[in-house]
Amino acid sequence: MKILGIDPGLDRTGWAVLEHVPPAPPRLLASGLIHTEKGLDLGKRLAAIFEELNAVISENAPGEAAIEEVFFSKRADTQANTTHARGVILLACERSGLKTCSYNPKTIKKSISGSGSAEKPQMQRMVQMTLNLKEIPRPDDIADAMAAAICHIRTAPFRAAMLRGSK
Amino acid sequence: MKILGIDPGLDRTGWAVLEHVPPAPPRLLASGLIHTEKGLDLGKRLAAIFEELNAVISENAPGEAAIEEVFFSKRADTQANTTHARGVILLACERSGLKTCSYNPKTIKKSISGSGSAEKPQMQRMVQMTLNLKEIPRPDDIADAMAAAICHIRTAPFRAAMLRGSK
Repeated sequence: MKILGIDPGLDRTGWAVLEHVPPAPPRLLASGLIHTEKGLDLGKRLAAIFEELNAVISENAPGEAAIEEVFFSKRADTQANTTHARGVILLACERSGLKTCSYNPKTIKKSISGSGSAEKPQMQRMVQMTLNLKEIPRPDDIADAMAAAICHIRTAPFRAAMLRGSK
Repeated sequence: MKILGIDPGLDRTGWAVLEHVPPAPPRLLASGLIHTEKGLDLGKRLAAIFEELNAVISENAPGEAAIEEVFFSKRADTQANTTHARGVILLACERSGLKTCSYNPKTIKKSISGSGSAEKPQMQRMVQMTLNLKEIPRPDDIADAMAAAICHIRTAPFRAAMLRGSK
């Protein structure tokens, strides 16, 4: 199974595609950054994110997506920008038929490091070790996208158990 | 010129298409509500809004769009839902080549009633009179979409003057 992790943002959306074939640990297949120019108007920036993400999905063919939720203590305008971007990201995943889950930043931190208040450098080292990468993943947006995908993989057994329980 | 006014919402997005051929007053051509089920997941609801709005644009062929901004004293979850919806609405307008402007609720109220703190019943009566409608427009979401389009028409001369001034 290929999992697409996404850290949404209007300026920069990080993405990472992991392959997970248990019992092997998850493996990084591809990652990147979707960048939009601050000078462009909001509609054009959202269209650029939508189109680039569609291209990423079509090239990498993931089956599931893990999308970070918007952190609500950010500035109101940043929060609105990120949420607009997140809307078109969810749309792209839905229209491509991906099974999509949302994770809040604390859940992601906890699943990677064991603590919901882990600092970025610690998170990035944990992501590096989990994916057996030669270097610390950079920039933050891509590292966060990898973390979202790892969180999705680690929480899968619980989701499966809950689904069985609700049947 | 046909103007599409939109009041974004995840549960209900109101829309209205006005025709404006100066010096005649604006005239209502069509209006409606895009409704999505609360039980569906966010991606499916956003996809439904995107697809229905694309159909509205393709049937009515507006040249410009006026989209209400999200009111920031709402509950955090409502605000996030509305902003996700607004993201896919901006995307639909951009991909259809509409010239799109955003208006905050106070600007819309002021352009319709002369006051940024006008109450809903007063706003709806003003919209009714402006468009020469037989009845008060209902529900609120559709009346608000009409108000956004009227605001766009009334502020057009100022936008044109500003564009001339900046050249």
